[in-house]
Parts: sequence; C-alpha cells; structure tokens
Amino acid sequence: MSKFHFADRLIEAIKTKKSVVCVGLDPRLDKIPEFIRDKHFKKHAKFPFLAASEAILEFNKGLIDAVKDVAVIVKPQIAFYEMFGAEGISCFIETMKYAREKGLLTIADAKRGDIGTTAEAYAKAFLGKVKVGDNEQEIFGADSITVAPYLGYDGIKPFVQECKVNGKGMFVLVKTSNRSSGDLQDLFVEKTEKNAAQPAFHIMAQYVDSWGAEDVGESGYSCVGAVVGATYPSQAVELRKLMPNAIFLVPGYGAQGGTAKDVVGCFNKDGLGAIVNSSREICFAYEKSEKYSAENYAEAAKEAAEKMRDDIASVL
Amino acid sequence: MSKFHFADRLIEAIKTKKSVVCVGLDPRLDKIPEFIRDKHFKKHAKFPFLAASEAILEFNKGLIDAVKDVAVIVKPQIAFYEMFGAEGISCFIETMKYAREKGLLTIADAKRGDIGTTAEAYAKAFLGKVKVGDNEQEIFGADSITVAPYLGYDGIKPFVQECKVNGKGMFVLVKTSNRSSGDLQDLFVEKTEKNAAQPAFHIMAQYVDSWGAEDVGESGYSCVGAVVGATYPSQAVELRKLMPNAIFLVPGYGAQGGTAKDVVGCFNKDGLGAIVNSSREICFAYEKSEKYSAENYAEAAKEAAEKMRDDIASVL
Repeated sequence: MSKFHFADRLIEAIKTKKSVVCVGLDPRLDKIPEFIRDKHFKKHAKFPFLAASEAILEFNKGLIDAVKDVAVIVKPQIAFYEMFGAEGISCFIETMKYAREKGLLTIADAKRGDIGTTAEAYAKAFLGKVKVGDNEQEIFGADSITVAPYLGYDGIKPFVQECKVNGKGMFVLVKTSNRSSGDLQDLFVEKTEKNAAQPAFHIMAQYVDSWGAEDVGESGYSCVGAVVGATYPSQAVELRKLMPNAIFLVPGYGAQGGTAKDVVGCFNKDGLGAIVNSSREICFAYEKSEKYSAENYAEAAKEAAEKMRDDIASVL
Repeated sequence: MSKFHFADRLIEAIKTKKSVVCVGLDPRLDKIPEFIRDKHFKKHAKFPFLAASEAILEFNKGLIDAVKDVAVIVKPQIAFYEMFGAEGISCFIETMKYAREKGLLTIADAKRGDIGTTAEAYAKAFLGKVKVGDNEQEIFGADSITVAPYLGYDGIKPFVQECKVNGKGMFVLVKTSNRSSGDLQDLFVEKTEKNAAQPAFHIMAQYVDSWGAEDVGESGYSCVGAVVGATYPSQAVELRKLMPNAIFLVPGYGAQGGTAKDVVGCFNKDGLGAIVNSSREICFAYEKSEKYSAENYAEAAKEAAEKMRDDIASVL
C-alpha cells in the first residue's frame, strides 16, 4: 500500500497494530495530575497561561508515550488549546509534532469550514505548508483534520486539494454524536428528480462519497472520511452503505454512552473502515481507577486503551 | 439603550456613526505594502512568521485608525492569522484589542461549532474569560463571534450563555454568500405537523429566532444574529421576515458581487437590523486607486469605507 496516501497509511497502521483506537487529547487543566501542574506553575508563577500550556504538553507526552503501540491515531481538540491563546496554540503544535515522532497519525479536531481563500488558508495551515518569502513550512503538521460542511463544496474543495498534494486526510461532519445533532442533520428532504426523500445527513453522506471519489488509495479508502457518531448505531449502518470508501471517525464511544456493539455498523465486512475515538475515559482513566494513582496516569491510560481495543476487536 | 447588551451597543454605534459598515480584516501578506513588510522582515530576518505577524499588525493598526469613525465594527478572519501559528494568534489578539481601544466593536470571524465542553471552551475563549488558578482573563476579547450550526443547539447554547453573561453577540451561519451555499442550505425539507415544506435555511432561521428570543435588548435586537449573504437578495427578504429580531451580518458586498440594492432586503423598515461587510475592497483599496499609493493605503481604505457607507445609506 502507498506510504503516501492518508487512508493507506491509516489502514496499514490499523492492520499492524490490530487496533482502531483513536485517543482524543482533550486536556482539562483541573484534571491534570497535581504533580505536573505544580511543577510548571512554580516555574512560571507569573505566567499562568504558559504554565498551563506546558503542563498540558507534559501530560500529553506521557499519554502519547503510553498509548503509542495501542492507538493508531490521536485527535487533539484544538478548543482546549486555543483557550490559552498563543501559548495554547504552541502546545497544540508541539503535541501534534510529538505524536508524529512517536509513530502515531494525527487528526486536528478543528471542525474548520469556510470559503474560498479562507478555506485555502485553513487547509494550508493544517494539512500543507505556509509560504512567507522564501520560507515555506508546516504550521500544524496534521495528518488530517475534521471539517464542518454547512457552506457546501466551496468549503471542502481546498481541503481535498491539500489532501491530494500532501497525502493528507479529512473527516467531514455527517451525523454527529450529540443529542441535538438532528436539529439540522435529520431534517427530512423532499423527493427530487435525482433523489428519493431522505434525511439531510444522507445527502451529506452522498456528497462525501462523491467528494472523495477522485482520491481513493490502494486500500480502497478515500482521503475524504466522515464523522459518524457511535450514539446513532442504526444510522451508522445506513451511512456505511452510502459511503463505502470513506473512513469513519466515530466519536461517542465510552463516556458519551456508545458501546462496542453500537460501533459495529460503522465498519465494513472486512472489519476495516472506521476508527473509534475515546477521550476522557482514556486520558483521565486514573481518576476512576483503584489500581493507579495520579502519578501513574499514563499506565492507567494505556490499560484503558488496551481494554477499548480488545472490546471493539471482540465484536468485529 | 443598554451599554451592556451587544445588540444595543451595535445599534447605538450605527445611529451615532450613521453607518452599517463592517470592515473585514483579512490580511494577505503579499498585498501588504512593501514598506511595511520590509521593515519587519529586516528586523526579524530569521523569524519570517514573526515578521509576517508584526507586519500584519502594523497594517491593521493603520486601517483601524483610518476607518474608526466610518465603520461600526471590524471582523478579522482568524484563518489569515492562525496560518502563521502562535505568532499569528498573538497578532489576532492584538488586532482585536487595538480595535476596541479605538472604539470599534469586533467580530471574531471564526465560524466555530462544536458540542458540550468543547463549545464552552470556545465560547469562554472568544466571548468570556478563561480561568487558570486564581487568574481569570480574556483571551480573544471579542464582542461577538461567527458560529457554524451543523451540530444543532448543543453547539449554540454555550455561546448564548456567554453572550448573556458578558453582553456579547454571535452570528449564526444561515444563508452564506458563496456559490455552493445551496448544497446543504437550500435542501427542500418536507412538510411536517409543525412546519410547511421549506428550504433548510428557513428552518435554520427559525432556530436563530428562537435561540435569540431569551436575550433581546432594549433596541429590540437579540444577541443571536445571522449571517446572510448579499449575493442572495430575494432569500434575504424572506429571512428578514423569519428573524425580525436578529441582526444580520451581510458578507458578499463589493468584491463578491453584491450591490447596495442587493442588501436592502437585509434591513428592517427603520433602516436598522444589518451590518454589511467588505474586506478586500476596503483594506486593499490602494491597489486599484490612481489617487493613492501604497504609502497611503490607510487613506485609500478610509475613502473606500466612506464610499461604501454612503452607497448603502443612499438606498435605505
């Protein structure tokens, strides 16, 4: 399989590690073990936002080291970094870099979506390189990004372009895991000359299928994937049929209530085609553990990731 | 009128300045006058991304000084800052701060949209304060933000909450100005027990109306506004009826082809209820001017903003 195409790289990692685990790196400062926080807040007493960012980075590195052989991909949610301003963005960038150094693929969970030159700017910053004078460099260095589709294809095209040029991937929101996802996504669309009557998220799925058709890797999967929540298992089965070549990024497993059984429908018959995300239940596993203390948060995370890997493998 | 509520503050500024002009601060490095670029690239020869960010900040400050009595609000598009990494984010923050110091209201054009604690993190970072230990501070210090609605109310609620607590505002994407906006927004939704058959963006408009109903200011306008493109004038007329209390943020005037006549439908009969954005045609007015050189880019921008103000006033 191609060592360049994002989907091929991901499928290869899934086969090698026998895992479909995606670890969501969504740090909450108050949940980071005190021994880490204290160190950085003593060092940067006058710069709390720098201290917070450095504490998060140390915490993340510990997690990455622990899960690198169990997870195939990590997904830092940029909101939890951006909230600390420029220092937080540096921490996000360093986290992405460290994960890649440790052999993990990365998803920038940024849900960007805009048009024209704005979408191009996002796409280059996350998936490509930004040029300033003679200098051209990666900014976020992500292998893939989540994208919001409200603006239609204008907002998608620049990302597809960067995916093709740089061997990167994207996951378009199709059916999200949250309770009110139906407000817009489940609206029932009238029959037209082209289409049967169906919910809006079905139409979105058909777009995703067509947007990705021009860049399918040797694995049979495209650079354009889809976000499909574990909390709507019957919809996932419908979506799997509508997007046979799309890799599903599946949130909602664990803390949000989705079980291994709920995610089965996101996979193709060969047991491939989806990655399943868990954030809190892995990163902060130590909090609920009787076996591990805060000092051993990384070991607790590793055990939780292994448990998740095996839980999902048992139903595929 | 309340000096706290976002809509009241905006309507007050519109009445005082007799202007509905929003200036989009979307810097493109290659369009920033050479004399500004050279200065910063000489100073930071080894740090091109810092140099770029400082050049942009100087350019923006010149624009803000020039348009502060003509425009009511400025709208930096965060993509054009984020693309330079942490330095770019610092530049974005400094731009927002400078605009507010000069008496301008601000929109962070970030089109954020996520769920639960993630949306809370975004809302606090852009519209509220972030707490770290005993320290609590504004990060982006925006008066308002653009928000993407694909995830439904879960993604909206945390922003409404911050708006209410802090006297801030938000603009939800309803009908965007781009060519493919109809891919999703124009899908025609079947008749239900509650609703007539109608396009999806009408339903989104009804959501916006209801989401904002709980926080209407003395001006009669709500903290929840809507993005409605100037490029779809007949749809704007329909939307004005569906969202009587929402302030419309109207992109698409000028460079994207919208005229003063096209935006009329975005306003209520009293000539209020909308702000109209122009980016390129104001910020880079000097490029098309025979009267102004690059050194006088700020004067060129001021004249372009005045022309736009008068152009729209002539039809209201």
